[in-house]
Amino acid sequence: MAPPTHMVREIAEQPAALAATFEALLPLREDLRRMFEGRRHVMFAARGSSDNAAVYGRYLLGAHAGVRGSMAAPSLATHYGPGGNGVELDLDDTLVVSVSQSGATEEIVATQQWAARRGAATVAVANVPGSPLLRTADLALRTQAGPELAVPATKSYLTQLAAMVVLATALAPDPTSLDADIARVPDAVARLVDEQHGVDEAAAALSASRHPLVSGRGLLMGTALEVALKLEETCLRPVRGLSYADLRHGPIAVVDDDVLAVLVSAADGPLTGAMTDLARELRDRGARTVGVGGDAGFQDSVDVAVAGPDLPEVLAPLGTVVPLQLAIERAARVLGLDPDAPRGLRKVTRTDA
Amino acid sequence: MAPPTHMVREIAEQPAALAATFEALLPLREDLRRMFEGRRHVMFAARGSSDNAAVYGRYLLGAHAGVRGSMAAPSLATHYGPGGNGVELDLDDTLVVSVSQSGATEEIVATQQWAARRGAATVAVANVPGSPLLRTADLALRTQAGPELAVPATKSYLTQLAAMVVLATALAPDPTSLDADIARVPDAVARLVDEQHGVDEAAAALSASRHPLVSGRGLLMGTALEVALKLEETCLRPVRGLSYADLRHGPIAVVDDDVLAVLVSAADGPLTGAMTDLARELRDRGARTVGVGGDAGFQDSVDVAVAGPDLPEVLAPLGTVVPLQLAIERAARVLGLDPDAPRGLRKVTRTDA
Repeated sequence: MAPPTHMVREIAEQPAALAATFEALLPLREDLRRMFEGRRHVMFAARGSSDNAAVYGRYLLGAHAGVRGSMAAPSLATHYGPGGNGVELDLDDTLVVSVSQSGATEEIVATQQWAARRGAATVAVANVPGSPLLRTADLALRTQAGPELAVPATKSYLTQLAAMVVLATALAPDPTSLDADIARVPDAVARLVDEQHGVDEAAAALSASRHPLVSGRGLLMGTALEVALKLEETCLRPVRGLSYADLRHGPIAVVDDDVLAVLVSAADGPLTGAMTDLARELRDRGARTVGVGGDAGFQDSVDVAVAGPDLPEVLAPLGTVVPLQLAIERAARVLGLDPDAPRGLRKVTRTDA
Repeated sequence: MAPPTHMVREIAEQPAALAATFEALLPLREDLRRMFEGRRHVMFAARGSSDNAAVYGRYLLGAHAGVRGSMAAPSLATHYGPGGNGVELDLDDTLVVSVSQSGATEEIVATQQWAARRGAATVAVANVPGSPLLRTADLALRTQAGPELAVPATKSYLTQLAAMVVLATALAPDPTSLDADIARVPDAVARLVDEQHGVDEAAAALSASRHPLVSGRGLLMGTALEVALKLEETCLRPVRGLSYADLRHGPIAVVDDDVLAVLVSAADGPLTGAMTDLARELRDRGARTVGVGGDAGFQDSVDVAVAGPDLPEVLAPLGTVVPLQLAIERAARVLGLDPDAPRGLRKVTRTDA
């Protein structure tokens, strides 16, 4: 038998990495709160998996803390100078949060520097100690994933989600209101790694499909985007990650029995019913469906039901991705690929060659 | 010979629709300027093609006017209530711009109402007179596309881009600095409709490809997303629309000789060199490439070169999409499909069934 891949080991290290990250970062909430005083907006700068983590951060800020988050357009910082009329964006009402596993993604480092010059307070979320982002931010949120050897990010991504929880709760009126649930996260993730309900069936479906799409909504939309990216970079096939709304505004027209749809849902919250309706509609169009999480109605509406975490919707993204990480690693091996080293990817991606 | 489709007729009506829209909306710049006084942010609420128009608006605001634009997350308005702690987003520093051809997309109407309650000033960009968005916004920017009968949006999308130009120039220090170029837009589009350099070759490539992807960057990123959506909904095949950065952060690993890559570029500006490098890299990986616009170096680096508009980068999106609208309409007919009525789509999409 082949030895376990780095990827599968790193997936299993996630409960400990999450616990260590929360322990390191929760005490920094008071600093985050102070930095945000007099400011009103949070802007995230990130790419790839880190950007998918930031999408969760953005929804969590809005839904939990009542704070507006938005995604930076890095090319405005790195390629477009002052506007045609010589004016520059003013960011003195904004906290800019840069997210990057390596802390060295050049374009994000440049965006953080640009934001600081434009008056923003800067927070960096990164995993590599001493990296440029961590060294130069006003506040460094170092995730505690440890070295990540597989190219597909797993534990570094999950600890970025933990940093998003720290950020959003720090800026909420009562920073401690989720603390009891936060304390349960590592165990909830450990149970998913141990029990793996539905993971084998999901892996079989993923390895057999040539046209998978992945969809989620609201707090789980970032999860859908991350699953799509992970599946694509690990199994080397084109995968579409679509928000629920984007799927319904066009692409649903091309769904037929050639399509595998992977849907992620929280067990509670305002969107579970909509995700269940979507699962039924996709099945009616002939698609095969894999559903992760959700409630009993959702699980009854999909072809392959995969157990999600025992966590409320606001924290569900820290668990929902885990069984799919496992299924993707397995599907890659079924396809004869090395999950640790998909071709064409380096650990630090440069946007400009 | 079959009569021309609605779609091809509506593509040809675009120069007149643009001229009428600029004539109707440019005089409203002073109103827009006044509404924005004391505010600092623009937030766009839109779905589908309208969302792709808003992506251009967002970049144009940043690159030309030095004003921050961001994309709303409508589910925060329509499904999540006050944050877990009873707090709500405060939008009193924000101008919310809703964009919808019909002016009746329920989710966007609900988002506009929510934004007004939260203190935002509201502007609606819509094409149907008397529609809910236009009736209830603080300022109505009615596009002058006239009735659009084909399901795939063409002239309504292009006139939305014109509304974005009106908005961004209104908020720039000198609202009139682009006026000479704006006046040239209808003729530049008319020339693309007449001359069609490379359109036949592009249509042949599109109809032959099972896995097209579309990419662009900065001011042209919205164009790439729109071309991808149009190609998918008209030719009924899965198409991926990716920003330059998202393509390089993962999906480029799965590019091989099975892929057709459609790249859109401005002829000038800071990103044409990067798009040329991307074209070369995709070709080196075996992809077949169709390039629209760009400079001589870009056109030399693609397999099928399609002429773009004679417009500066800030206005190039109003022309670059046009030859691809024509190519997509033609490709659909080659595939035996009716471009006017792709299956599964209605003119007003409801996100919630």
